[in-house]
Amino acid sequence: MSFLPVEEQLEVIRRGTVEIVPEEELVEKLKKSKKDNQPLKIKLGCDPTRPDLHLGHSVILRKLRQFQDLGHEAILIIGDFTAMIGDPTGQNETRPALSEEEIKENASTYLEQATKILDEEKTTIVYNSDWLGSMQFQDVIKLASKLTVARMIERDDFSKRFEANEPISLHEFLYPLAQGQDSVHLHSDVELGGTDQKFNLLVGRELQKDDGQEPQICLMMPLLVGTDGTKKMSKSYDNYIGITEDANDMYGKVLSISDDLIYPWFELITDIPVDDLPKYKEKAEKDPRNAKHDLAFTLTAMYHGGAAAKEARNHFEQTVINKEISDDAPTYEYDAGEEVRLLDIIAETGFTESNGQTKRLIKQGGVSIDDKKITDKGYSITFEEDTELVLKVGKRNFCYLKGK
Amino acid sequence: MSFLPVEEQLEVIRRGTVEIVPEEELVEKLKKSKKDNQPLKIKLGCDPTRPDLHLGHSVILRKLRQFQDLGHEAILIIGDFTAMIGDPTGQNETRPALSEEEIKENASTYLEQATKILDEEKTTIVYNSDWLGSMQFQDVIKLASKLTVARMIERDDFSKRFEANEPISLHEFLYPLAQGQDSVHLHSDVELGGTDQKFNLLVGRELQKDDGQEPQICLMMPLLVGTDGTKKMSKSYDNYIGITEDANDMYGKVLSISDDLIYPWFELITDIPVDDLPKYKEKAEKDPRNAKHDLAFTLTAMYHGGAAAKEARNHFEQTVINKEISDDAPTYEYDAGEEVRLLDIIAETGFTESNGQTKRLIKQGGVSIDDKKITDKGYSITFEEDTELVLKVGKRNFCYLKGK
Repeated sequence: MSFLPVEEQLEVIRRGTVEIVPEEELVEKLKKSKKDNQPLKIKLGCDPTRPDLHLGHSVILRKLRQFQDLGHEAILIIGDFTAMIGDPTGQNETRPALSEEEIKENASTYLEQATKILDEEKTTIVYNSDWLGSMQFQDVIKLASKLTVARMIERDDFSKRFEANEPISLHEFLYPLAQGQDSVHLHSDVELGGTDQKFNLLVGRELQKDDGQEPQICLMMPLLVGTDGTKKMSKSYDNYIGITEDANDMYGKVLSISDDLIYPWFELITDIPVDDLPKYKEKAEKDPRNAKHDLAFTLTAMYHGGAAAKEARNHFEQTVINKEISDDAPTYEYDAGEEVRLLDIIAETGFTESNGQTKRLIKQGGVSIDDKKITDKGYSITFEEDTELVLKVGKRNFCYLKGK
Repeated sequence: MSFLPVEEQLEVIRRGTVEIVPEEELVEKLKKSKKDNQPLKIKLGCDPTRPDLHLGHSVILRKLRQFQDLGHEAILIIGDFTAMIGDPTGQNETRPALSEEEIKENASTYLEQATKILDEEKTTIVYNSDWLGSMQFQDVIKLASKLTVARMIERDDFSKRFEANEPISLHEFLYPLAQGQDSVHLHSDVELGGTDQKFNLLVGRELQKDDGQEPQICLMMPLLVGTDGTKKMSKSYDNYIGITEDANDMYGKVLSISDDLIYPWFELITDIPVDDLPKYKEKAEKDPRNAKHDLAFTLTAMYHGGAAAKEARNHFEQTVINKEISDDAPTYEYDAGEEVRLLDIIAETGFTESNGQTKRLIKQGGVSIDDKKITDKGYSITFEEDTELVLKVGKRNFCYLKGK
């Protein structure tokens, strides 16, 4: 194949990245790759301990996919070497030592999901126990001699723990070396990771230099903020959307995110072409409600196909909004530009006996607008001409609120 | 064999030690050993990189010999594992990577010398590459997980370097683990080391505990001060006496040490029975000159036999003092209790033209008394009735100085 011009490739590669270290070397590598018609080796390590992928994981997998689409070689490393060891101190229950069989099974579950994003046929899959497993004590000593203790402690999480006198087990210093050795073994040109992986990626760069190789470029992606709008997406925070979640759940959950996540999610986890992103950025700002539906539709279509996405949209509109609300639900209209307190609106509808009851209902989560719970008793709505909302009070009281 | 009473063994074991950690556990081990008629395993590691042994090394070897004489098992570990690696950073020229053949050769040179001190037939010799060489990366990770980074940095030399921002290569943290693993493998009861080895010995103790073994006792010996009277004995300070140095050189060099080293040397590096030590302590204080001759004789006899020691003494007396001095050398007598300046004595002998020339000679090291160079121009001698000294001025001028 012939490669795109370097500048065009860079535009795709830069999408959503936090940092490329160093970018000028990446430019050189891309130039050489195009000139020699030789793809770059793009490395991504994955942990076969917790094989359930969610959209947070997709940030980095999509970046790998973009490299694939640009014609480069994706190398997915199954980190079975450390998974087989688990947490040797036994303190971390989320890191049990896995058997070879469990790892194979987890890896296959992982790949089944990852290939919803990656181009399966163009993905090279390797297991790092193949080379790390045959290293001996003397090899580890030589490897360890390439780095200093001070350099290790520089790593953000290590330095914090060190200063707080929290114990760092000595073996934790060996894991970045193992990851770096993967790069040496594979002669990777680029390694992808989250921002929390920067140090480990740089170790790979140093070890490659020491080995006389041209060092890899480290490309860091941000951590995706989860549906709660504050923490990074994670199963343990219950703010995640699984890659294999069914179309309706996915669609509905995406609609529940806060407005300021709409554009970052477009940029980081959708396949919207880079040229179209500005359009979505504008829509996210000006018309977040519909932009969110676009996002939900796009993501659902990516993982379940266009037909399933359409169905999910219909399902949402019919079931969640329309079906519950009876045809004879009343409509309340307000002037465009008018700001009205929710308490006053509900008082007008007569759905409650008193403001006190309304406040209790709000506190209990019994009031929602467009299926989104309102928890602020002082909430108010500023109406526009095209405002069209569904207000739900308690379990069965619905009405339309419209601007005029 | 039957073991001596524990208290008697302890008296021998405590000789010259700086610290026994913990001593009460050693007592228990000795009791059990005696009760079960089972010798303790005493471990000593040695570095086959620099096989030239001097009296400094003999401190610890003598301690091992004492344990042998008490009926315990001496295990000498040839540290070939790390010697084969050398200094992987290449910065330390004194630690080249050695081939298997070089190590075998060095080890045999080492043993040839060490068995001048140890009871060869009762010494078990092992090479730690036998077990460390087959350890794999995963084993090292498990081993490293037993200790924390903070614990490592506690080690005196590490903490100093860390605070001074001097680089500590990461592999340096692995060596104490390797040494500790030796103890785990051997199930050692006691490990011997210099005071600079305390940390490493304690690591062995911890790893044994972690392995469910009864932990070893750490016994630390002081570092022997060299012939210069200030620094620890070392080839690089040129203040050493080699174990294989010939009898005359050994005898003469011992005579050159300062008086305050006499007793420590008796205690640490001679085979004078522990019961006789107080006698030598007293003599070292009251009659250092003859005590030094005793020490020189004892050490020379230990390494070359009694006959060679006698010959060395004669040789020193005849060659160094008497033979050079012609029969017709003049004698100068001074009253007992009189303090006379060396300058005045030399002026009286007429060996120099002027005090100025005398001072220059002293500065150049051309003046000696009893073969010991005098470098202080203000040196004076207080005569006793039995004072008998040989004064040498320049290359050929001798005279006797006597008290009366």
